[in-house]
Amino acid sequence: MVQFSDISAALETQVIELPSWAFGNSGTRFKVFGTPGTPRTPQEKIADAAKVNEFTGLSPKVALHIPWDKVDDYSELRDYAADLGMQLGTVNSNTFQDDDYKFGSLTHVDPKIRQKAIDHHFECIEIMDATGSTDLKIWLADGTNYPGQGDIRGRQDRLADSLAKIYARVGDEQRLVLEYKFFEPAFYHTDVPDWGTSYAQVSALGERALVCLDTGHHAPGTNIEFIVAQLLRLGKLGSFDFNSRFYADDDLIVGAADPFQLFRIIYEVIRGGGYGPDSGVAFMLDQCHNVEDKIPGQIRSVLNVQEMTARALLVDGDALTAAQNAGDVLGANGILMDAFYTDVRGDLAEWRSGRGLPADPMVAYAASGNQEKIAAERVGGAQASWGA
Amino acid sequence: MVQFSDISAALETQVIELPSWAFGNSGTRFKVFGTPGTPRTPQEKIADAAKVNEFTGLSPKVALHIPWDKVDDYSELRDYAADLGMQLGTVNSNTFQDDDYKFGSLTHVDPKIRQKAIDHHFECIEIMDATGSTDLKIWLADGTNYPGQGDIRGRQDRLADSLAKIYARVGDEQRLVLEYKFFEPAFYHTDVPDWGTSYAQVSALGERALVCLDTGHHAPGTNIEFIVAQLLRLGKLGSFDFNSRFYADDDLIVGAADPFQLFRIIYEVIRGGGYGPDSGVAFMLDQCHNVEDKIPGQIRSVLNVQEMTARALLVDGDALTAAQNAGDVLGANGILMDAFYTDVRGDLAEWRSGRGLPADPMVAYAASGNQEKIAAERVGGAQASWGA
Amino acid sequence: MVQFSDISAALETQVIELPSWAFGNSGTRFKVFGTPGTPRTPQEKIADAAKVNEFTGLSPKVALHIPWDKVDDYSELRDYAADLGMQLGTVNSNTFQDDDYKFGSLTHVDPKIRQKAIDHHFECIEIMDATGSTDLKIWLADGTNYPGQGDIRGRQDRLADSLAKIYARVGDEQRLVLEYKFFEPAFYHTDVPDWGTSYAQVSALGERALVCLDTGHHAPGTNIEFIVAQLLRLGKLGSFDFNSRFYADDDLIVGAADPFQLFRIIYEVIRGGGYGPDSGVAFMLDQCHNVEDKIPGQIRSVLNVQEMTARALLVDGDALTAAQNAGDVLGANGILMDAFYTDVRGDLAEWRSGRGLPADPMVAYAASGNQEKIAAERVGGAQASWGA
Amino acid sequence: MVQFSDISAALETQVIELPSWAFGNSGTRFKVFGTPGTPRTPQEKIADAAKVNEFTGLSPKVALHIPWDKVDDYSELRDYAADLGMQLGTVNSNTFQDDDYKFGSLTHVDPKIRQKAIDHHFECIEIMDATGSTDLKIWLADGTNYPGQGDIRGRQDRLADSLAKIYARVGDEQRLVLEYKFFEPAFYHTDVPDWGTSYAQVSALGERALVCLDTGHHAPGTNIEFIVAQLLRLGKLGSFDFNSRFYADDDLIVGAADPFQLFRIIYEVIRGGGYGPDSGVAFMLDQCHNVEDKIPGQIRSVLNVQEMTARALLVDGDALTAAQNAGDVLGANGILMDAFYTDVRGDLAEWRSGRGLPADPMVAYAASGNQEKIAAERVGGAQASWGA
Repeated sequence: MVQFSDISAALETQVIELPSWAFGNSGTRFKVFGTPGTPRTPQEKIADAAKVNEFTGLSPKVALHIPWDKVDDYSELRDYAADLGMQLGTVNSNTFQDDDYKFGSLTHVDPKIRQKAIDHHFECIEIMDATGSTDLKIWLADGTNYPGQGDIRGRQDRLADSLAKIYARVGDEQRLVLEYKFFEPAFYHTDVPDWGTSYAQVSALGERALVCLDTGHHAPGTNIEFIVAQLLRLGKLGSFDFNSRFYADDDLIVGAADPFQLFRIIYEVIRGGGYGPDSGVAFMLDQCHNVEDKIPGQIRSVLNVQEMTARALLVDGDALTAAQNAGDVLGANGILMDAFYTDVRGDLAEWRSGRGLPADPMVAYAASGNQEKIAAERVGGAQASWGA
Repeated sequence: MVQFSDISAALETQVIELPSWAFGNSGTRFKVFGTPGTPRTPQEKIADAAKVNEFTGLSPKVALHIPWDKVDDYSELRDYAADLGMQLGTVNSNTFQDDDYKFGSLTHVDPKIRQKAIDHHFECIEIMDATGSTDLKIWLADGTNYPGQGDIRGRQDRLADSLAKIYARVGDEQRLVLEYKFFEPAFYHTDVPDWGTSYAQVSALGERALVCLDTGHHAPGTNIEFIVAQLLRLGKLGSFDFNSRFYADDDLIVGAADPFQLFRIIYEVIRGGGYGPDSGVAFMLDQCHNVEDKIPGQIRSVLNVQEMTARALLVDGDALTAAQNAGDVLGANGILMDAFYTDVRGDLAEWRSGRGLPADPMVAYAASGNQEKIAAERVGGAQASWGA
Repeated sequence: MVQFSDISAALETQVIELPSWAFGNSGTRFKVFGTPGTPRTPQEKIADAAKVNEFTGLSPKVALHIPWDKVDDYSELRDYAADLGMQLGTVNSNTFQDDDYKFGSLTHVDPKIRQKAIDHHFECIEIMDATGSTDLKIWLADGTNYPGQGDIRGRQDRLADSLAKIYARVGDEQRLVLEYKFFEPAFYHTDVPDWGTSYAQVSALGERALVCLDTGHHAPGTNIEFIVAQLLRLGKLGSFDFNSRFYADDDLIVGAADPFQLFRIIYEVIRGGGYGPDSGVAFMLDQCHNVEDKIPGQIRSVLNVQEMTARALLVDGDALTAAQNAGDVLGANGILMDAFYTDVRGDLAEWRSGRGLPADPMVAYAASGNQEKIAAERVGGAQASWGA
Repeated sequence: MVQFSDISAALETQVIELPSWAFGNSGTRFKVFGTPGTPRTPQEKIADAAKVNEFTGLSPKVALHIPWDKVDDYSELRDYAADLGMQLGTVNSNTFQDDDYKFGSLTHVDPKIRQKAIDHHFECIEIMDATGSTDLKIWLADGTNYPGQGDIRGRQDRLADSLAKIYARVGDEQRLVLEYKFFEPAFYHTDVPDWGTSYAQVSALGERALVCLDTGHHAPGTNIEFIVAQLLRLGKLGSFDFNSRFYADDDLIVGAADPFQLFRIIYEVIRGGGYGPDSGVAFMLDQCHNVEDKIPGQIRSVLNVQEMTARALLVDGDALTAAQNAGDVLGANGILMDAFYTDVRGDLAEWRSGRGLPADPMVAYAASGNQEKIAAERVGGAQASWGA
């Protein structure tokens, strides 16, 4: 049996990157609700991310989204973050909110619009140079709503060409990660809809081009841990966008909808060598807190990832392999479930206390008065949201 | 064999109600694209709806959405519509865009917020009195995003109570139609998620409470024509919101994603007595033209409904029954497919010409110069969208 | 906080009915694997069910399937069961394996075949009289594979008529429960595909006609606990068929695919008054052990239900209501998750030990030698399966 | 505008391979219904396939399934087929019906069982040498039912190793095609569940290893024509298994469930160079006629493919490209729909008549008396089914 003490060291190495946009307002096409205390600037988003790290010790990195997090001086932003104990992480590009991109960006039939989208990525790479970010993440919203609207095949070829131009600028210590998504905002076809497409595209680019797996971007019934195992096997898993969903891309708190699925995913990550600082696999959140408070929502999220990581680390691998090899279906399943059902929360509370962190970060944050403080301070200005 | 001449009279009676909001801008949570010529006022939306009717003869009614279509004087609005040959149809309420409704409206735990939502429906009924509308349609966005967030059962009881209060105000010649939706904007649970819930709720109200079936509001794989047949059998099908979807509630042009499904739905409507002016079943569109032009989008939509209606009317019912009773699977299926595959477009073009309508409404509208005209005229002001 | 000691008494009352067919062989259309020790007779199935009860104390009832469990003398079968400490439970009818039912049974166009299917249910009621069973369960496999093959609406009317005839024979202390299923074995349409249809049909029959909810019989993404809450609210939840699934009607061990979903379902059962001997809601398993051993598969299953029941009973209802009413999304969700994540297995082991049951029924059964014993004894004869 | 006369020559080249097993009995796990006239031997299956070809001119090839179609002398079988105007096509292996394969075949942990499965494929290749077949098709049923039951990653590695051994024996003029399937018969994980996995595996093998796309093997909502375009782009589309489905792998008549989807798929095939004898893409059916007659079921199927091919060939590609490039969403969609809605049945009847084929093959077959003849002749013996 694996004990908590056996996994304590492994837990030390966990880093979960926070998305700056999780601290801004978000919603559905029907309504975006505002909340008191929502950041107005990239700096305030970083400050909020730093709070999550302060209470959990899990999230020393914050990802940027360009242009939502545009500033005049990215070195200053990096210093600002560093002063709060934070690093700037993945730079996320945006080719879906400009009117020019109505019919596509990197896949557009018009070379001028494609070049505009490529140039945007060049700008992102320059920002990475300034911030010290290593990952350029491309989630491509391109697609069509009606059969016949676009040339599916031609778009794929143009995408390959655009990506090649971007990849050529990615630095030797930098990576390009290409995210796939089943549907939305396009409804009939999406240009990078599945891991196979992302894999085929990044394989054509080179070694520093990898796949980003967002846990909410699959068809119903998809076995996500299988994809994790496959991409690790192929050497092409670059990063995760963690969140959870009941039906579509709901962007709910990771682990909230199907905690056992999260457990299975992280278990395959660990087995496949995707866990830890040298694995080359980045853990990131990509969530929207439409109706719940944002900072505690992020605290809850990183704790969920940590708790599931602890449970997954507790799996008795030797016993499991023995049961699998013996064709003992119930025995093998039981060994996995035993780890999942182990309540690690008490041990983790101790683990945190031993490291100068609050035993219960949710309670500690609520008691800290920060939420009231930012609600009082952040008056006036435009609350950050997906629009800015 | 049924001939086109046999169905010509039945086609005369078809009325398809247009949603005023289809003429405004719409999009996804990621982006709403604007287009030149988009209406700025309820009047301009009605004018656009009247254009659709002018070119197709199919859509003499336009549905309103309150508050998006609020005006000072609804009698004036009715007169304005009448001058354009249009009637004001279903009044759609909105309890999802006020900050108070973040955690529910008709289901809210706070009686004051429930009353506010009920009062909004009273206002809608008053508008109906002024506009001569007969149907009050309630699509309830209420729901929760996280397990535990709300009391599913208590919300259902409160919904029943709120609906009873609204129904008590519905006039003798008016009806309440309750729409169901599988998910969105709530992700974990929706308070009226399926036809069974809508049916149970309206059955508790009385005879003038009916179900609204939106063709995009079901789980993947759902047999929608079965629900049509069932609701007609139970005497509770009040109206349709027609649109099409590939995965979620895409709100695409009706018939664009799966035309054969549309055929099967309309076939069950006709068989079940749901077709025609005395059937008590309202045909309405509920769509979003995110990337295509709106007026031609609506023209295409009503033509699709008409074309499928013609095909469905062509089914040789006697031959079909005989094949069904004989256990002739391929024969029965073949009779249905024969009607579906019949190209009615030429006959419909003639039918239109014989009634003073353009043979090809899409071509005629494009040639009319209207799109250029409204693009030139409608400058300044705020383009209508879901926000207003 | 609710403690385990607070829920101990409630756990005493739990009864989980076992399906006799779970002990026979089962599989997919591709292959049915046999296993040593599989029962050859209804008596051997009951003996296996008794073993599950011996090791868990949870399953003193076994459901029959007619004709798979046909015997000459049902009083003798009852006595045989009683000697093993077992009662005979729900009687399940079968109208899907006779060649006459190729195009339907209770819905068939031919009145002779309908009557044959009705007569089969009369026979089931007579068996219930002899066995002391109270529930007649109808899972109707009727449906069609191709559009046009059958008259969806006419079939529904004939179903209503057939059910009325059956219901008229159901004794005053007996009940009819009508199960719904999304698809399979019919692919285009199923005559009782959803809870709404089952509810509409049983409501037309009378008070002792109720709905059976099989947890594997829904479209992807369906919120099952909502249906539980709704049916309890409407007074029409008669029984559960518990199992789990990843995609279709996989009939896997309950709780194996999504344990958190099972937790939420049982939580709504308890809240809605559906738990306990006087609730009128029967807990039953309906599973197939295609690749795992059958008796331990059933032991694992009843333990899973018990463990989730314990977790659900631990929810602090007052705190939850307070958080819900305060709009505290994360707080309310946290209270629910806290109960779910509580590891009740140690407490349950003690609970069992205190009642003369093995602390770990899986280990105890494996050590008992029963599996080897039946494998050695049950040689020759035809292993029970769905065919007999 | 493309005219039927423009596409007539292209239609000449169409070959649709029939699956021998479509003529045997099939069903669900609940019941397999028998029908009079069902073949008892591989020869009788081939004779039935020849009938389909006789009435349609579309299907001069029949695929074999080993061991269901095992004979002592495959040269004799080839000659038998040739006498009926038929070629023997794809050889399909079977590693899912032997008790040894309960926990896997090419992926099994036991090297002896893996070798047995590999040897089976060697046998299939020998049969191909004798029959002149060029394609070895592997549909791998391997997978697990419970999390933890198997080592997902290890199984993938063993699969790669097994496939390499098989591929090494594939002749220079032969190909290996690897089919993927979303789920069933395994429910938790399938070892080749998606096109990405099949693509990654065959890419590692070599040029003559390709992907087989079965149109029923995807998650709900999957855009299949996108996968077609992608695989053609990557040079890895080897063959189709055509059928249709409403929810799972229903194996219904191709085009029966969603004819517009079939149209879109064939349109992408044609555009991508996958149509015609030199394309290297084999069109095959893989269907089950559970409730309908088998020979007319196959006739209906090949006609459906032909009709959709004709419609897809009618798409005005230049006009479509122009509309796409102009961002004319409705125009582009309209051009596609125009071809889909064109009723080609009359032209095809003439086309057939001009080639000595019956104008209406369904009517001609029914009138031929063949069904009555085989029903009378084929008495005694065991009707062919999936078991033999």
